[in-house]
This record gives sequence, structure tokens and C-alpha cells, in this order.
Amino acid sequence: MTQLEHARQGRVTAEMKAVAASENIGETVLMAAVAAGLAVIPANVKHNDLRPIGIGRGLRTKVNANIGTSADFPRLEDEMVKLQAVLDCGCDTVMDLSTGGDITAIRRALLERSFIPFGNVPVYEMMIDAPRRGTPFVSLSAAQMLDYIRRQAADGVDFMTIHAGLTRRAIEKLRKKPRLAGIVSRGGSMLTAWMLHNERENPLYDGFDEVLAVAREFDVTLSLGDGLRPGSLADGSDWAQLEELLTLGELVQRARRAGVQVMVEGPGHLPIQQVEMNIRLQKEVCAGAPFYVLGPVVTDVAPGYDHVTAAIGSALAGAAGADFLCYVTPAEHLGLPGEQEVRQGIMASRIAAHVADVAKELPGALDWDRRMAEARRNLDWAGQEALCLDPGMFRRIRERRGSRTDACSMCGDFCVYKILDKYRL
Amino acid sequence: MTQLEHARQGRVTAEMKAVAASENIGETVLMAAVAAGLAVIPANVKHNDLRPIGIGRGLRTKVNANIGTSADFPRLEDEMVKLQAVLDCGCDTVMDLSTGGDITAIRRALLERSFIPFGNVPVYEMMIDAPRRGTPFVSLSAAQMLDYIRRQAADGVDFMTIHAGLTRRAIEKLRKKPRLAGIVSRGGSMLTAWMLHNERENPLYDGFDEVLAVAREFDVTLSLGDGLRPGSLADGSDWAQLEELLTLGELVQRARRAGVQVMVEGPGHLPIQQVEMNIRLQKEVCAGAPFYVLGPVVTDVAPGYDHVTAAIGSALAGAAGADFLCYVTPAEHLGLPGEQEVRQGIMASRIAAHVADVAKELPGALDWDRRMAEARRNLDWAGQEALCLDPGMFRRIRERRGSRTDACSMCGDFCVYKILDKYRL
Repeated sequence: MTQLEHARQGRVTAEMKAVAASENIGETVLMAAVAAGLAVIPANVKHNDLRPIGIGRGLRTKVNANIGTSADFPRLEDEMVKLQAVLDCGCDTVMDLSTGGDITAIRRALLERSFIPFGNVPVYEMMIDAPRRGTPFVSLSAAQMLDYIRRQAADGVDFMTIHAGLTRRAIEKLRKKPRLAGIVSRGGSMLTAWMLHNERENPLYDGFDEVLAVAREFDVTLSLGDGLRPGSLADGSDWAQLEELLTLGELVQRARRAGVQVMVEGPGHLPIQQVEMNIRLQKEVCAGAPFYVLGPVVTDVAPGYDHVTAAIGSALAGAAGADFLCYVTPAEHLGLPGEQEVRQGIMASRIAAHVADVAKELPGALDWDRRMAEARRNLDWAGQEALCLDPGMFRRIRERRGSRTDACSMCGDFCVYKILDKYRL
Repeated sequence: MTQLEHARQGRVTAEMKAVAASENIGETVLMAAVAAGLAVIPANVKHNDLRPIGIGRGLRTKVNANIGTSADFPRLEDEMVKLQAVLDCGCDTVMDLSTGGDITAIRRALLERSFIPFGNVPVYEMMIDAPRRGTPFVSLSAAQMLDYIRRQAADGVDFMTIHAGLTRRAIEKLRKKPRLAGIVSRGGSMLTAWMLHNERENPLYDGFDEVLAVAREFDVTLSLGDGLRPGSLADGSDWAQLEELLTLGELVQRARRAGVQVMVEGPGHLPIQQVEMNIRLQKEVCAGAPFYVLGPVVTDVAPGYDHVTAAIGSALAGAAGADFLCYVTPAEHLGLPGEQEVRQGIMASRIAAHVADVAKELPGALDWDRRMAEARRNLDWAGQEALCLDPGMFRRIRERRGSRTDACSMCGDFCVYKILDKYRL
């Protein structure tokens, strides 16, 4: 049985207990949110030693980091280093998007070390592994695709991006109103190629009931992918994106009916003035399903700084109700991220998530800022270091630009807190 | 005569011509905005070889970088390096906030090299220089303060932060509703100390007419400082801040009546959900005067990453109508920034400014994103490098994580644009 089914039957599972405790909320409140599909707890029954987290209404905004090999950087060791960085940085979940080397072995090795929920995009293994076995992706049958998904689920993958909402109708919309940047989802583009090659409907849409059966068996949380997410500002909120969103709304209903936990992925590139609208629209269309935002990257012009462009978009998205933020690294649009870029991406996303939590008025969120401001006011540098998001970075900058005074090297004796100390203001 | 006075008399100055050309707008449109006080052109009549820029309604959102010595890092050479970085990074204006070494000589040396508008905070020289001459700041007379301001204006400073809105009444508000983080403006805290020590009104408020006379003589644009800007999320939009804002609204009127160009500075730390409201409020209270935002830093917990926290706040502020963004560096709250931190701060702020320009629907803003997305779609790496915000960073990441393919090292042959190439989608 899935967490959703347990919740519906009024059972508080061990996972719900753990999540409620870590979020400092009531267990029955959480159970009700899970039962209503407003929150999910990605926890594959085969994932040993998982520390479960919750994603959705009333819970802290979560951050995901994507790691994984590519054809150019296929070494498992590099990805193990990145996984360690993900864990060290306090990231909530990790996705393995490997597309190089022995995908299956890499997934298993990473999953074994990951005590946080572990996600993937099943199509990636299909597109790499099937051709090696003599079957190009576009020649895979729906049954063969399902086999991949089943094996991945049996390995313990907690959540999977499934691009089931990308239908022929949506591709028609794309042809009627062409895009500047086309399709930028890799999974989406592979499925589109399959559909155009075979002149048939998306096999994950047509076979969605079978996908649901596998998901239910292992309690894999489905993350309904937006294969037609805009990949440039100019394409934001266009017909193709909205057509797919409408289908995702239906698929959310079907998943919930089947007892499968489900969330929905959202737009990649959007002008800032469209961010809030997109979040509210998705929440409306998808009946409050947890929203997993990719970016949103709010300008196309800043490769090298897309952790910043995404922090802007995702802070705003989170404040408007998005539940789960996929990090973006400085290497986005340029190459596979290295370990340092993984760290930068996580920190930028964690900032956005906390900024959103303050806006959501989550219990305790603003308290963190309060405690930090208090330590700052008291010139309590050890306290600030202990409280801040990244004590290592705090220390490095202090050491490099440190001060002979008990204040900092910017203001020295002209620190505001020294100037007014005697007036107690 | 000031730009404002020229504009009121229907004269398009050389500075207006240059600004209109660089903004690609009509000269009379700009002249009308300047005449109405909705835009300013900081251009001290004594600043030679200035390339003027405009700040305000209908103009690109501008970015300022603060540089300047401190007691711990008093060397002019370091600041000259930072100034060069500011100019290299395409920053719109620079402020000298020096508080170490020979302040006067440093200002003059930096100003001579700065072809972009140059600002300062007059109180800083007073608080450093006066004690060296035997007069503690709190013992300075209003006339002595004015002498400092006049000398700085005569040096060619284009815009000055004047904390004239910080009145005894505002300090009363602060006492009635105490703050977590108190006063975090250095100029504001010095003036508060002066007021409490002397038990008299703010000398820059009482002597505002004299300040206006100096500003008018040299066409110094006044940037009305928010000495009581909140310095922690918990203090956002509190009574003291709003009391000061009301006074700033009056001072804007007085400045405009006196023919002096004026803008208004705004909140330092705010929860994200208060950002838009603050911008709209200021625009209303200050009759559309250009708004110069400091931050807003949208969480207190991320020292080491405050370029990111401020990029979030200032992108949103800009989208809501703020005109001028003061950069924040990763060293904020930790120490005086070094050159690399100056560069990081500027890039983060330039991103926020462009994101805002897209939201403001400024002519040409979205075109930049379009051209970039087009180069990306065409896998035109040289085109992307030429178009992007920071070609140096683009190149460095590409070189470090570069690819053997014509795509990138993340996707390689599974680049979406390769997958769907033959389907022309």
C-alpha cells in the first residue's frame, strides 16, 4: 500500500511520523494532507534506510539536486563525490540523470548511498541502454518501456519524472504556434521523436494505467514531467505548455484514484511577471498537487549564473505556493556541473526555499532570520557562523576579509552597533 | 542650472541627448520625465568626461556598485582595482563609501577615473575626517557639515546620499516600537548619535534648504537616504521606516520645488512578500521619484550569498517599479569586499536589473533574451558567448566542463536540439 492509501484509511505510517516530527507539525494534519493528495512522501518500499521527507502543503519548501553522468563524464566516482556534496549541503532530495557509462550500475550505487529520497527520469536509461542492446529508442514498445520503469522501481527509486502529459494534441499546438526554443526537455524530446516516428500517441500516456500499477506496487511517487516546458522567456505560458498542463491535471486525478502519490513539474524559463500566475494556475488545474519547479529561469541571457536566475524565479514561485525546487547550477546551459557547481546550485536553491517558507508563514521559518539578526546585532560572530546557511563559506570570507576588530573589516569601529551602543537603540 | 530646471524650461541638454540615445527613446519624452521628477540624470557640472545615464520612469533599471576603503583596508590602489572591475563589468554608477585612509584624496582619485556617475555619502568623510581634526562627529555644527558637502560637490560628486528624513519623531517611533536589528545605516546611526547627544533635530533636516542650495549649484542629485531602513526581516515595514518615508515624501517635494534632482533610497531587509508593497508605497508617497533600492535582502540567514538574496529582492523590486539597484556582494555582513566579490555582486545585480526590464516591458529588453535563445537553439556557441551577460564566465565554464561535441558536456548527442532536428520542431 502507498502512503496515500494508508493516509486515506486513517493510518499514520512510520514515514508520516518521521516527517511530522521533522516538520514540527501534527501527524494527523500531515496524514490529512497526504490523503488529499496535497502532500506526498516519496518513499519507495524497496529503498532501505531512507530518511523520508514530505513535499507539499504546510511543509517546508524542499530542494532537489540533479546529478549523474554524461557521455563526456561517465565516471561513477565523480558522481559519488557529487552525491556526498548533495548530502553535505543539506539538500532534501537527489535525482540521478545519468546518461553515460553503465546507467544501471550507477543508479544502484548512488541509490545505495542516498539516505534522502532518490528520483530519476526513466526515459534516460531507455534512450542510452536500449540502443546498446540493438533497439533504438523510437523502436521500443510500450511494454519494453514499462519493463525499464519496473526495474527502476524495484531498485528503490522514490520518485520518477514521467512525461505522460505530452500528447499528440500538444504537439499539434506546438505546430500551430511555433516556438523560439522548441522542446527543451530531454525526456520530452525523446518521447516526441517516438511519437513522430511511429505516428502514435505517447506510450506513457496510452499506457498510463500500467505506469500507475507499477508506481502503486512500489509506492513510487510520480512526478508528472512537463515535456513542453518553455525553454526561453519568449515561449513562456504558450499554448503547448498549457495544453500539456491540462492533460497533467487529468493525470493527477487518475493517479490519485489509483492510490498513487503524484506531483507536477513546472516551467523552466519564464519572465518574472509570469511566475506567480503559473504557480497559481498549476495549483488550480492540478487540484493542489505539489508543484515541483524547474527554475524558473527568469532570463535567458545569463549562462554561468543560472543558479542566480533560478533563485530569483524559484523564490517567487515558492512564495506563490510551489513546494519543491529543482536546483540549477552555474553550469546550466554550458556543461555537466562539477562538484563546486553542485554546491553553488544547492545553496542558491536553499536560499530560495527559505525565502519562500518565510512568505508561506511556516512555523519557525522567520525565527531563523530572527535568531540570525539577533546574533548579528550582538556582534556574536560564533553565533552567526553556527546559525548561517553555510558556515564554511561564512568562515572562508571572514578569514579572507577578516578584521582586527570585533566588528568586520567593512565598518570596523564605525559599526552601527558600536556607534549607538550607549544609546541602547 | 540643473537638468531638472533645463527640462522644465523645455531645453534638451547634451546630457539628455546622450541618455535618450543610449536608451533609444525620444529626447522630449525623456525631457518630460526629468521635468516631472520621474527621472534623474546625475551629472555634476564639475564632473569632467562623464558619460551621463538616466535613472527613472521608462529607462533601463540601473545598477550601482559600492567601493571604498575601510580602516582595515585603507589603500587607494585596492580601490582603483575595484573601480576598474566596476567599469569592466558594465556597472552603471559607482559610490565611494571610503572610511579609511585619506578620504579626500581617495575620492578625488576615484572620481577622476570614473566616467560613470559617481556617488558618495557625505557623512562618511565627516565621521572620519572631523575627529582627526579634533572635532568628534557629534560636535560638528550644521555649518561645518555643509562645508563638507560643499567641498564634495565641488569635487564633482554626481549624487549624494543625504539622510535628511531621519527626524526626532522617527526616533520616537523607534522607541515606541523597538526593533530587533536597530539602525543599520551607518550615516543614519551617526546622525542619530548626533541628535541624541545634542538633543536637537537632525541638522540635515533642519538645514535641508542649505543642502538644496549646494545641490542646485553643482547639480548634485540628492539620494534621500533611509537611515531607518530595516536591517532584518523582522523589522520590515515598521513604524520607524514608514515615519521616515513620510518625511522623505515631503523632502522630495521641497527638492523639486528648489529645482534639485532627487531620488529616494529604500529598504535593506524585507521578507519577499513585502517587497512589491514597499516599492508601490514609496512611489505613491514620493510622487513617483526614482527609487534606489538597497537589497532588498530577503533573508538574514545567508551571509556569504547576499548577492543572491539581494538579486531575488531587487529583481522583484525592479519588476514592481524600482529604478536603481544597489549591488550587494557575497562579503556583505562579513567584511569589505575584494575585487572578485565586487564582480560577483555586479553580475547578480545586472541580472536582476535585466529581469526587471523584461517585466517593465522596456523596448528591446526581451529581444536580448530572444537573440540568446535563438543562438542557443542553433547550437551557436560563439553567438551565445558574444550575447551573454558575462562572456568571460561563459568561456571559463565551457573550458572547464567543455565537450568533444558541438553540443555541451551535459547532453552530448542527446541534446534536445539534435534529437528533434529532423522533425523541425
